[in-house]
Amino acid sequence: MKAISDILPHIAYGGDYNPEQWNEKVWYEDAALMQKAGVNLVSVGIFSWAVLEREEDRFDFTWLDKVMNILHEHGVGVCLATATASPPAWLSRKYPETLAVDDKGVPYSFGSRQHYSPNSSIYRRAVKKLVTKLAERYKDHPALKMWHINNEYGCHVSECYSQDSLEAFHAWLRRRYQTIDTLNEKWGTNFWSQRYNYFDDITFLSNTPTFPNPGQQLDYKRFMNDSLLELYMVEKKILRDITPDVPVFTNFMFEFKPLNYFSWAPELDVVTWDTYPDPREGTPEAHALQHDLMRSLKHGQPFLVMEQVTSHVNWRDINVPKKPGEMRLWSYSAIARGSDGIMFFQWRQSRAGAEKFHGAMVPHSGDEQSRTYREVQQLGQELKQLDSLTGAVVPARAAIIFDWENWWAVEMEGKPHNKLSYLEQVKAYYHTFYRRNIAVDFVQPGGDLSSYDLVAAPMLYMVKNGEKKNLEQFVENGGTLVVSFFSGIVDENDRIHPDYYPEPLRHILGIHVEEFVPMAGGEWNQLSAGTDHYRCTTWSDVIHLETAEAAAYFTEDWYQGRPAVTTNSYGKGKAVYVGTEPEQAFIDDILTGLMREKGITAPASAPPNVEIVERTSGKGNHLVIVNHNQEEARIELDSGRSYVDLLAGTKVENEVIVQAVDVLVLRQTEQK
Amino acid sequence: MKAISDILPHIAYGGDYNPEQWNEKVWYEDAALMQKAGVNLVSVGIFSWAVLEREEDRFDFTWLDKVMNILHEHGVGVCLATATASPPAWLSRKYPETLAVDDKGVPYSFGSRQHYSPNSSIYRRAVKKLVTKLAERYKDHPALKMWHINNEYGCHVSECYSQDSLEAFHAWLRRRYQTIDTLNEKWGTNFWSQRYNYFDDITFLSNTPTFPNPGQQLDYKRFMNDSLLELYMVEKKILRDITPDVPVFTNFMFEFKPLNYFSWAPELDVVTWDTYPDPREGTPEAHALQHDLMRSLKHGQPFLVMEQVTSHVNWRDINVPKKPGEMRLWSYSAIARGSDGIMFFQWRQSRAGAEKFHGAMVPHSGDEQSRTYREVQQLGQELKQLDSLTGAVVPARAAIIFDWENWWAVEMEGKPHNKLSYLEQVKAYYHTFYRRNIAVDFVQPGGDLSSYDLVAAPMLYMVKNGEKKNLEQFVENGGTLVVSFFSGIVDENDRIHPDYYPEPLRHILGIHVEEFVPMAGGEWNQLSAGTDHYRCTTWSDVIHLETAEAAAYFTEDWYQGRPAVTTNSYGKGKAVYVGTEPEQAFIDDILTGLMREKGITAPASAPPNVEIVERTSGKGNHLVIVNHNQEEARIELDSGRSYVDLLAGTKVENEVIVQAVDVLVLRQTEQK
Amino acid sequence: MKAISDILPHIAYGGDYNPEQWNEKVWYEDAALMQKAGVNLVSVGIFSWAVLEREEDRFDFTWLDKVMNILHEHGVGVCLATATASPPAWLSRKYPETLAVDDKGVPYSFGSRQHYSPNSSIYRRAVKKLVTKLAERYKDHPALKMWHINNEYGCHVSECYSQDSLEAFHAWLRRRYQTIDTLNEKWGTNFWSQRYNYFDDITFLSNTPTFPNPGQQLDYKRFMNDSLLELYMVEKKILRDITPDVPVFTNFMFEFKPLNYFSWAPELDVVTWDTYPDPREGTPEAHALQHDLMRSLKHGQPFLVMEQVTSHVNWRDINVPKKPGEMRLWSYSAIARGSDGIMFFQWRQSRAGAEKFHGAMVPHSGDEQSRTYREVQQLGQELKQLDSLTGAVVPARAAIIFDWENWWAVEMEGKPHNKLSYLEQVKAYYHTFYRRNIAVDFVQPGGDLSSYDLVAAPMLYMVKNGEKKNLEQFVENGGTLVVSFFSGIVDENDRIHPDYYPEPLRHILGIHVEEFVPMAGGEWNQLSAGTDHYRCTTWSDVIHLETAEAAAYFTEDWYQGRPAVTTNSYGKGKAVYVGTEPEQAFIDDILTGLMREKGITAPASAPPNVEIVERTSGKGNHLVIVNHNQEEARIELDSGRSYVDLLAGTKVENEVIVQAVDVLVLRQTEQK
Repeated sequence: MKAISDILPHIAYGGDYNPEQWNEKVWYEDAALMQKAGVNLVSVGIFSWAVLEREEDRFDFTWLDKVMNILHEHGVGVCLATATASPPAWLSRKYPETLAVDDKGVPYSFGSRQHYSPNSSIYRRAVKKLVTKLAERYKDHPALKMWHINNEYGCHVSECYSQDSLEAFHAWLRRRYQTIDTLNEKWGTNFWSQRYNYFDDITFLSNTPTFPNPGQQLDYKRFMNDSLLELYMVEKKILRDITPDVPVFTNFMFEFKPLNYFSWAPELDVVTWDTYPDPREGTPEAHALQHDLMRSLKHGQPFLVMEQVTSHVNWRDINVPKKPGEMRLWSYSAIARGSDGIMFFQWRQSRAGAEKFHGAMVPHSGDEQSRTYREVQQLGQELKQLDSLTGAVVPARAAIIFDWENWWAVEMEGKPHNKLSYLEQVKAYYHTFYRRNIAVDFVQPGGDLSSYDLVAAPMLYMVKNGEKKNLEQFVENGGTLVVSFFSGIVDENDRIHPDYYPEPLRHILGIHVEEFVPMAGGEWNQLSAGTDHYRCTTWSDVIHLETAEAAAYFTEDWYQGRPAVTTNSYGKGKAVYVGTEPEQAFIDDILTGLMREKGITAPASAPPNVEIVERTSGKGNHLVIVNHNQEEARIELDSGRSYVDLLAGTKVENEVIVQAVDVLVLRQTEQK
Repeated sequence: MKAISDILPHIAYGGDYNPEQWNEKVWYEDAALMQKAGVNLVSVGIFSWAVLEREEDRFDFTWLDKVMNILHEHGVGVCLATATASPPAWLSRKYPETLAVDDKGVPYSFGSRQHYSPNSSIYRRAVKKLVTKLAERYKDHPALKMWHINNEYGCHVSECYSQDSLEAFHAWLRRRYQTIDTLNEKWGTNFWSQRYNYFDDITFLSNTPTFPNPGQQLDYKRFMNDSLLELYMVEKKILRDITPDVPVFTNFMFEFKPLNYFSWAPELDVVTWDTYPDPREGTPEAHALQHDLMRSLKHGQPFLVMEQVTSHVNWRDINVPKKPGEMRLWSYSAIARGSDGIMFFQWRQSRAGAEKFHGAMVPHSGDEQSRTYREVQQLGQELKQLDSLTGAVVPARAAIIFDWENWWAVEMEGKPHNKLSYLEQVKAYYHTFYRRNIAVDFVQPGGDLSSYDLVAAPMLYMVKNGEKKNLEQFVENGGTLVVSFFSGIVDENDRIHPDYYPEPLRHILGIHVEEFVPMAGGEWNQLSAGTDHYRCTTWSDVIHLETAEAAAYFTEDWYQGRPAVTTNSYGKGKAVYVGTEPEQAFIDDILTGLMREKGITAPASAPPNVEIVERTSGKGNHLVIVNHNQEEARIELDSGRSYVDLLAGTKVENEVIVQAVDVLVLRQTEQK
Repeated sequence: MKAISDILPHIAYGGDYNPEQWNEKVWYEDAALMQKAGVNLVSVGIFSWAVLEREEDRFDFTWLDKVMNILHEHGVGVCLATATASPPAWLSRKYPETLAVDDKGVPYSFGSRQHYSPNSSIYRRAVKKLVTKLAERYKDHPALKMWHINNEYGCHVSECYSQDSLEAFHAWLRRRYQTIDTLNEKWGTNFWSQRYNYFDDITFLSNTPTFPNPGQQLDYKRFMNDSLLELYMVEKKILRDITPDVPVFTNFMFEFKPLNYFSWAPELDVVTWDTYPDPREGTPEAHALQHDLMRSLKHGQPFLVMEQVTSHVNWRDINVPKKPGEMRLWSYSAIARGSDGIMFFQWRQSRAGAEKFHGAMVPHSGDEQSRTYREVQQLGQELKQLDSLTGAVVPARAAIIFDWENWWAVEMEGKPHNKLSYLEQVKAYYHTFYRRNIAVDFVQPGGDLSSYDLVAAPMLYMVKNGEKKNLEQFVENGGTLVVSFFSGIVDENDRIHPDYYPEPLRHILGIHVEEFVPMAGGEWNQLSAGTDHYRCTTWSDVIHLETAEAAAYFTEDWYQGRPAVTTNSYGKGKAVYVGTEPEQAFIDDILTGLMREKGITAPASAPPNVEIVERTSGKGNHLVIVNHNQEEARIELDSGRSYVDLLAGTKVENEVIVQAVDVLVLRQTEQK
């Protein structure tokens, strides 16, 4: 298969297109408006099953043929959806066992979307038939660029408690554990008389009187992730067989806990995701983090923004539109961090249905003079100047350890502190890098760390087989590792590592932790580090130094004077432990100190709230600069380099001004 | 049939009477106490099914015969209930399919009340048998004044998800849409692959994974309203056949969203309702609004307060008793606004059961010297002086558009702003009229507006077929119309009207709205109108003037300087648009300005917190004056008129004093 | 059977021991560590069913034989559990009807614990088989000290809605009421058409559309209490038959509403309970109250703390460890108030399962130098000095009326005030005694009051048959009774006592109450008592004096100037009524005044926050002194007495110093 940047040599621009909601006359108007707006790619058919297969085995592709042809004639490529995201009413009625079942044992109702059980064999059979038909029919259509498989897997239904799912769970457990004795050992079923004699004894934990077995809870999350991935693979296999050269993908979501996207990414030809920042929250730093994560899923390969909105969504309580210029600004933030496409949900605002108040590229009025369409058109025209960005990577020397399984485990109940948010811990460390324009990747704890100088591992509660070794090697070889509190506690089955906490990190950190002192909201302690003092909250570790030295101490409560932050030399490297949740300033200070030691710097110097990201490839070295401020920003560039401003076409050296709420894309002209 | 005021020539006074909770000796005590208190009407048998039909087909009317006779002997008329509000245990046990089913698919349990499914054919069959028996037995009883059908329809169960209900829903949809293609078009089922092939494919939306189809949601609400009304009609038909001259009614409730009482009112011979202001909330303005609404349901025909409480209820968290005098005061507020009766739940406080701590006319102690009984007795004696009020109407030149279907639609999810309360919007406009003693009616958007000079239409989100025309004609003919934000957006199936917002009101208002900017709690913008400034919240429209002029502008945010309030000349009239939720002072200022233009004035001038309402009929022109203040109030009367104070028997002219927490009922003596 | 203090002649010390979670090597380490820590008793096998009966009828006692032997060899006695608290997976799979069913009709899932229906005959049959086997096998084992039946009955499942439970409920009702007419009368089913023709007509109230019948609600609570007690009796009977000399018990819980422990206590040979104060709440006064209640359940007989934790639990949101010294301090508080044992959950911290982060006597690290183990060891060694305390009682002249059935009734819905907490009312009165070191017992309203001089009855809403007489006799004979608001309202079926409130207490109190005026949070009134004024909240009674005199008046609202607190002479005694919820100072003042009149005093004088409790027996008269303060406290002792400090071995007279966060146990040496 060709590289994505060969298939999509321009920044992809367009959106979800649902022509079945409109008549043929509108299709032609749409195609003309698309052309005018610079649209080069649309996703068609995501929710078309009911009009493609109108009754079981009664297929109707005539309308889609027409749509594909019209689009092609207007120079618009198609991500063709497999239309399996929402099966039609006739399927649910004829085969009610295809419905997913909720945790009260009640089947989901037809009438919205995604009501299928991922483990229903009948649903899977129907999926195979539909996808085969689609692939056979359109395999040679010139508009076909990529396959959009299903849609936002697990968005509403990431857990299913049907009989089919239970049987699939038994099979999954058999594969994982081979013998019931192994399972009993791993789940610790001698606690509370939970021992199983047979795999088939196992039921769902959906209505237990009190805290259920944590090992089983965790495996259920793994199983549901795997069920949905298996479902994706069912479609992928068919598509690969019939259209081996057409890339396949599905679209990921924001801070989406149920799916371990690291396990999915190898099966996608390109990572795509849907980004919906709430304009009320200001600069979308959390979405910048996700862009960096999405880029990291395939080790730096550019991703696509598969959905965003022009103005406002309709599924929050209060759905504020983006202000003039914000849609453009945030689009460039995505591009800066590795996106090669800007796609919207959706092309034309629906007249009916649950999302009729969700913004679109063409509003209800259809008005070409509307703010919405004008902004769409401006961006579409601009992006045509940026072909050299496609395929470019974002070089990074720092990384943050991120692990979905740890996320699942650390937020299960029955912990010392039951209000812990893994993401909040990750974000605190990410923030330091983001605000300083230091490129940062995300890596799994067992992933390749060899290209990084500084790695942060916030709240790495679960350390699985092999990960101890991986982290040790990184430090031994000279890396700097920062670990925060409640790390290194359990194995992959959520069983305590025997011996002192944090057993798998004990040698590398040179400490052990005797006790945990969780704090409630509003409670705090204080760190004393040299002459500086910092507030800390949430948690204190009672730490014993082994080979480490204390870098900060607690000043309050019965453990005052005990170490709170420690540093340890290990091999050629260094490991820092932060045994509490310090205020942001402390994290900033400690990480910037470590970056200074390693010579890690930003690509250019800029005032606060200006993003500068380097994207580089054989086609050139770029700086993408995004000014979130309401006033202009002066950027000092590397004095030895010259750039061309790709949107203005002007030459730039030494320093440059970015207007308020504006962007610059600079390509280096005289490197070597 | 005779007019209600012929059947009840005096202000009706009494309450629910549940003799089955007491023995025969108490019945005689009750009748004597009723006489002493001026009681002339009681509602008997509302929850008596289990003692009237003790097992299937085993009827026992002997006790009721006795009760009817005793009451008649003591001069007390009877609203005889049909006893169908709570079917007996034997019915649920023998026919479990008569139970309503909740949205999780779980049948309701017997053991409280109203557990029946309105669509159960077996329940309906049992109802018919009981009602026929009752009507046959008491059709000629001299105590029988009216039929009280069922009780507070839908109070606890306004939704049912039983199989019977599903089949009834299919039939209802077939009647409404004839073909499944029409339904698909109206519901917009091409969104999210929701297309149906057959009416029988349709299931309930009770457990959808996410936002369900809005058209279907809305029709389900219509269907449940119609199911309950159909059930009422089943009883009405029997009663009409057997007792053609006895009025029938059921009792309505406060701010009751599930039932479209406009659709019910034509089927009631008199509107009655149950009013339970919370004494902790001060002056019961929201209940005054309901009185006005109840009067409007049958176009001005007097209604009856069928339930209120002497002192305190027991179903709130904190059930505070009315202070001395408040029960009397609020009773007169109801009478002022068109009530011809003051009835209580209930006569004698229960010893057992879920409402034993609910107040009554006779408290647990049975003490005639109790504050409760003394207040009951005083009011009963007073009302005997007010026969001339019965049948009198409340003349109004202003109206507020009110529409249950709009209420349902605007508060469904998936909107730009999902905390909107239709009632709060209505109340803001009502408040201006209420505080100035301007009589105001409520009218449906398609209702007859010809008698009004000023009409307010707050948040008329849904504009259905014909309503556009009706509103246009009103303005064309010289009326003044005030429309507020988020109006004119959808048709009766909750589909966006094509073209610019607000399409059906665009010409009349002379504007179009390009964007909605919802605001969360705490956020605000500001209106600049001439030299005045007003705070506004919740919502801003981005408005384009077409033929209208701007009357106020937004001063903040990216749309500052754009029009916020507009006025437009249309035909002989005028249409005002308020594109935000202004503070009350702005609504007061704009409405009083418009009333000044139209010469709409209060019946007399009074200090704040004094209600003055005119009630007039062939029997005389009355002013009912209710002073909610803790000090006396001086009222200036029309200098050309003389009145008699009906309670004091004195003559009154020019001005009059109402004591603190007191009332006056004046009848004009020298009109012409 | 021998007295408990003969079977356990030393303060019992140890904890739950779950050897099935560890291998045999660890068992030997455990036994050695137990010896070192002074452990003399452990509870074994509480959750061992799945490893004792591995499949139906396949028993395996070999491992338990070994454990019992090892423990015995190390001088550790065993409370042998019957292992019925959590039935194994094979039982649920083979007999799903053994699962309890929740109030939505959904069976509980296997996978945590306590998922059985107490009314399942199959579960009961399996229980009998297991218990018989256990008793037969270990009846002569020298380690066996006591039988620990099941565990924390009702902790998670105190309500069951299974078919078995419904049939058991019918049988229970038949036994209680004999005829359906009696039931109808007692439940007041003529309200809302709820009359039943047959016991089998009755269904559960789990899904009623609105407030269900209160009489039925109350009887359901009684029934579930009786079902669980009956289940306990099934086991007790078997154990008594096979091991007539071995005491039996189960463990009670903190503020546990579902079980009426007064009805259980006669069936336990010793009361035991599980105490888990939250360290964040400071001095555990609420747990001191429970200690006093537990002591009162068997009329003063010492109880055992069967579970507490060394440091922290894991089932709260934020699980803070006890600070150094707190575990020891709070253990002595239990001993002071009548405990003859200090047991922990659990011996060794689990590696897996839902409670792996729950503290234990041996932490995950197994470290003997850990703070946790060192504190365990210190306490274990100290307790060896305190044999003379075992069996000693706590003499009390004051009592508080406490009634579970009243608790159930007063907190059901539909009341004048629906945020009332019975426990909060009890705690307000308890507080006065606690802070002054006045020993206080708890007694049921029909219990023997003859040994008390002062009795408080806070919010005694329900007064059942015979209780009126009991309270009257107490006062007639010279006792002082204090009753607070909302007392004397209903009979045992939650039916209003006919006549004036509070009918059963009217004569004794010399008043009647005409109206209730509940207040919401934040609202208040004021008491004027002589020249003093006190704030009062929650509730005001409108009181009529009959023979009583007013002791305080309300100063606000429409009932200002009416009596709020009254005193009445009755027989040789006195009855005080407090018709509101006064601030604590008022309760303190009124109770201390009454204690002064009766000469009720503390055993010694001490500064605030120091507990002093007298425990006395044939083996000596003791003072246990617990200093919760962060500074030392000086205690003035009765000048005529000499003591020996049992922990220090020194002689003490006149006054003594208790160090900060420290305890003293003094035994009187020169008493007569």
